[in-house]
Amino acid sequence: MTKKEENKSIIEICPIRNVIARFGNKWALLVIFILNENDSIRFNQLARKIPDISTKVLSSTLHILEADGLVKRTVFPEVPIRVEYELTETGKSLVPIITSLTEWAQNNKKSIMNHRKKFENSTSKSD
Amino acid sequence: MTKKEENKSIIEICPIRNVIARFGNKWALLVIFILNENDSIRFNQLARKIPDISTKVLSSTLHILEADGLVKRTVFPEVPIRVEYELTETGKSLVPIITSLTEWAQNNKKSIMNHRKKFENSTSKSD
Repeated sequence: MTKKEENKSIIEICPIRNVIARFGNKWALLVIFILNENDSIRFNQLARKIPDISTKVLSSTLHILEADGLVKRTVFPEVPIRVEYELTETGKSLVPIITSLTEWAQNNKKSIMNHRKKFENSTSKSD
Repeated sequence: MTKKEENKSIIEICPIRNVIARFGNKWALLVIFILNENDSIRFNQLARKIPDISTKVLSSTLHILEADGLVKRTVFPEVPIRVEYELTETGKSLVPIITSLTEWAQNNKKSIMNHRKKFENSTSKSD
């Protein structure tokens, strides 16, 4: 393979680096998934649905999704102040892909878990 | 929403936690993407295609993908020893989803980048 061909390959996958890298992590996927199940949701409701996420990580995940235009944050000037999050049209357009990914994971979960267990046993024996 | 309904939601997204969390990161997606473009590939060839990945991270990414049965590692007993990586059938079945994700990223890249820039400007002004 020539240097030019190798570079072409890197350019082609560039959207993964620039776009997906920002929300290509389990927390962002989970947040999008949950937002899709609700018209709009408050921060604390969202936090309760992902009990093992820290407030800091949830905040920064939402901040990134908002900055990238996948999530809309609305502040209601009430007392106490109410802040709600919902998916934008761009965010919603990502949902079918996340659903495919979740279905794939569901269908392959058993085989992956079995493989992982077998692999870990075989490598621990050869150590 | 009742406690039971909230738990249901968490159970439904469980495959994301158990399965996707392992390779739901940009490096694993990039590695699968590149492996799909090649019948089989040596470690150093793969490393050259992702210049900014460290050897350590590439190793551990491949190790996880191998453990989960997405990647097959073959050792050829030559001198010097040759090790090649290729996607398994399970790994290949994930490719159409990664392709959808990449296409989505490509289609939405411009709007996301613009939004990000506008968002950063507006938040830095309000600080």
